[in-house]
Amino acid sequence: MLIKNIKALDVRNGKILEKVDIYIKDNLIEKIGQNLDIEDEKIIDGSDKLAVPAFINSHTHLGMSLLRNYADDYKLKEWLEDKIWPIEAKLTPDDIYIGTLLSMVEMIKSGTATFCDMYYEMDRVAEATEKSGLRGMLTRGLGDLMGPPSPEERFADMRNLYKNYDGKANGRIKIFPGPHAIYTSTDKFLKDTISIVKECGNRVHIHLSETEGEVEDALRDRKMTPIEFCDSIGFLDQPTIAAHCTHITDKEIDLVKDKEFYPVYNPTSNLKLASGFTPVKKMLDKGIKVCLGTDGDSSNNNLNMVEEIHIASIVNKAVEKDATAVKAIEVLKMATINAAEAFGINSGEIKEGKLADITLFNLNSINFTPKNNLISALCYSASSEDVDTLIVDGKLLMENRKLLTLDEKEIIKKAQEAMDSILQR
Amino acid sequence: MLIKNIKALDVRNGKILEKVDIYIKDNLIEKIGQNLDIEDEKIIDGSDKLAVPAFINSHTHLGMSLLRNYADDYKLKEWLEDKIWPIEAKLTPDDIYIGTLLSMVEMIKSGTATFCDMYYEMDRVAEATEKSGLRGMLTRGLGDLMGPPSPEERFADMRNLYKNYDGKANGRIKIFPGPHAIYTSTDKFLKDTISIVKECGNRVHIHLSETEGEVEDALRDRKMTPIEFCDSIGFLDQPTIAAHCTHITDKEIDLVKDKEFYPVYNPTSNLKLASGFTPVKKMLDKGIKVCLGTDGDSSNNNLNMVEEIHIASIVNKAVEKDATAVKAIEVLKMATINAAEAFGINSGEIKEGKLADITLFNLNSINFTPKNNLISALCYSASSEDVDTLIVDGKLLMENRKLLTLDEKEIIKKAQEAMDSILQR
Repeated sequence: MLIKNIKALDVRNGKILEKVDIYIKDNLIEKIGQNLDIEDEKIIDGSDKLAVPAFINSHTHLGMSLLRNYADDYKLKEWLEDKIWPIEAKLTPDDIYIGTLLSMVEMIKSGTATFCDMYYEMDRVAEATEKSGLRGMLTRGLGDLMGPPSPEERFADMRNLYKNYDGKANGRIKIFPGPHAIYTSTDKFLKDTISIVKECGNRVHIHLSETEGEVEDALRDRKMTPIEFCDSIGFLDQPTIAAHCTHITDKEIDLVKDKEFYPVYNPTSNLKLASGFTPVKKMLDKGIKVCLGTDGDSSNNNLNMVEEIHIASIVNKAVEKDATAVKAIEVLKMATINAAEAFGINSGEIKEGKLADITLFNLNSINFTPKNNLISALCYSASSEDVDTLIVDGKLLMENRKLLTLDEKEIIKKAQEAMDSILQR
Repeated sequence: MLIKNIKALDVRNGKILEKVDIYIKDNLIEKIGQNLDIEDEKIIDGSDKLAVPAFINSHTHLGMSLLRNYADDYKLKEWLEDKIWPIEAKLTPDDIYIGTLLSMVEMIKSGTATFCDMYYEMDRVAEATEKSGLRGMLTRGLGDLMGPPSPEERFADMRNLYKNYDGKANGRIKIFPGPHAIYTSTDKFLKDTISIVKECGNRVHIHLSETEGEVEDALRDRKMTPIEFCDSIGFLDQPTIAAHCTHITDKEIDLVKDKEFYPVYNPTSNLKLASGFTPVKKMLDKGIKVCLGTDGDSSNNNLNMVEEIHIASIVNKAVEKDATAVKAIEVLKMATINAAEAFGINSGEIKEGKLADITLFNLNSINFTPKNNLISALCYSASSEDVDTLIVDGKLLMENRKLLTLDEKEIIKKAQEAMDSILQR
């Protein structure tokens, strides 16, 4: 595939490359340059487009899209315990499969190539990942205080998932454990999880310090903050994708800054559930590679990374009382190169030798008119509607806003039918 | 026009009406009911749509869209004085006209019927309002510390504008004064403005208490806060559209709560410029009819009320540490009935006898799937892309996402040419 005459975001250096050609061979960016003398069957005219490293949504729960707009304007505890958990208990593997596909349509239409999912029935999520063409970091939710299935079954499930799917779909699928949180596990279970992590993927995805209550409970029960506790049992010795970290302290920032510790900021979910304001600037200032996520559709209530980038930047300016804080380019890094490093994947930038995961924005749109600073535009004015084309692993998943791997109409229809049926149960 | 078999938001009572017909005659909603026995030439099938009172953007600067993404990630003072004012000085009436049209395309595509603009060359804005079919509250920026034109010329301009355009375009245009702020005027000028207000529209649009600095300066120079000062000179005796009020105090809330005082919350702009967190819940709790605005494209950087509604709700939950604060329906009121009251216009709800200003959302979209709580969906998951149709004053301005009064492609082209030319000057 050859993309001709396009503007491209060099996210690492915060620059826009003008009028380049991008040659994609197999699943890699083989060559970038001006007027490349290459012939290819598939030519994309990039003259009114902007190529951006396709986004990486570092924390989500895809199967929950069926619960979008199902329970809002509730306090977190009531929302989770009275509303979400009872209905989640009714979800079948088929519901999770269709909910996952619905989420995948959303992600493709808003320019996301890669997601990190924490849920259950993850073999069905792997199946949907293969079908959609997306790149999936699949993490099975684990915990021994969460009701059935038993800890042993969860571990067995995890091992099978790893054996059956890690590296599958041309390497698009990575599997590693997703212990839910420290408050849904005993100390013993969390310690046992470390050996599963070493066995399966050597990387971990966990919710950490999302709410004040979680921190208070940890201080009361474990005499340590959640992050200190994880460190004390050796949990942070492997790369850790730590969802939220809303209440990370200055001391904890110093504790994790030289580790392979990747906090995932989920601004919309943290604001909507009143979890708090995450100290993003403080973490970035210490060199921590903060990533960006949407969380699930039941607490966001969409998976739109374009919107998440926008909110991530503006909220932190107000928090810091500084309009220059957490600049557009810093948030774009959170949604691309920082996350690629967190997951150990060779993507996140438009550069020779990198995986061809590229989003093309339509510059002939209201939001990009006039074409002043395009990095500003991506963060402050762009809409998911401006996402024209998505390439993942060298393949087109959407072109001119038409989905090529998934049937949007059919998925919308089936998702509605699934929810209608769940509400009858 | 007859819209058949549609779901409709009853914003006042926070309910969704199911399967109703809405009959529009001339510019009014004549009849709402089930299976209306009415024949009309124009029938709209509403079966997969949601009718919502078209949004009212209560504070913006339309002509500034040419400066979208021109200067971001700067501190407010530097942004305004070093970046925005110098380039604004180069804008011609034609630039403002094309910038205004660009903004109007944005507003139509995101479901906004009515806007309140504060800028200059307002006769050109009136011209664009007539052409677009939108409903315009046009307020001429006034002040005697803002450089040319002179105070006298500004007043003369204001009187001419009122005489030539108030009530024009089938009543879609309302004119009233827009004194910029107390810090850009002398006491004398502000007092003189009151008589102009009484003469021209008996309503006023002003920036008030946007930043901490503005409040500190007022306390230093006038020994009163901006709102106390306005009250002391009789400025608040007519209906006041007070943009921002970010730093309104508890005492001031009590001062204005029984007046016709309408604060306009501009969340994106306030966050992005680090102006602060507006005490929206406190004001709503005291019965103040808070309105919602986008501010201009140079500080937002778009005019998307769907996004503004979303951000308005979630940010205030985090500020209040309460996930039930500033609920979806409360923000929808800010964007509709509260603003209709502020401007004294007979719109803002879908009700017999009201002006036919209606937005139709496409429910067959990812963001509305599954169809759980549609009020939640409007606030938390909807995107401007889901806005299918816009009716203003009984006329279609957009149908099936096709603009009917403005030529989007042509306006994008001309706006780009205008900005290219401005940068050469």
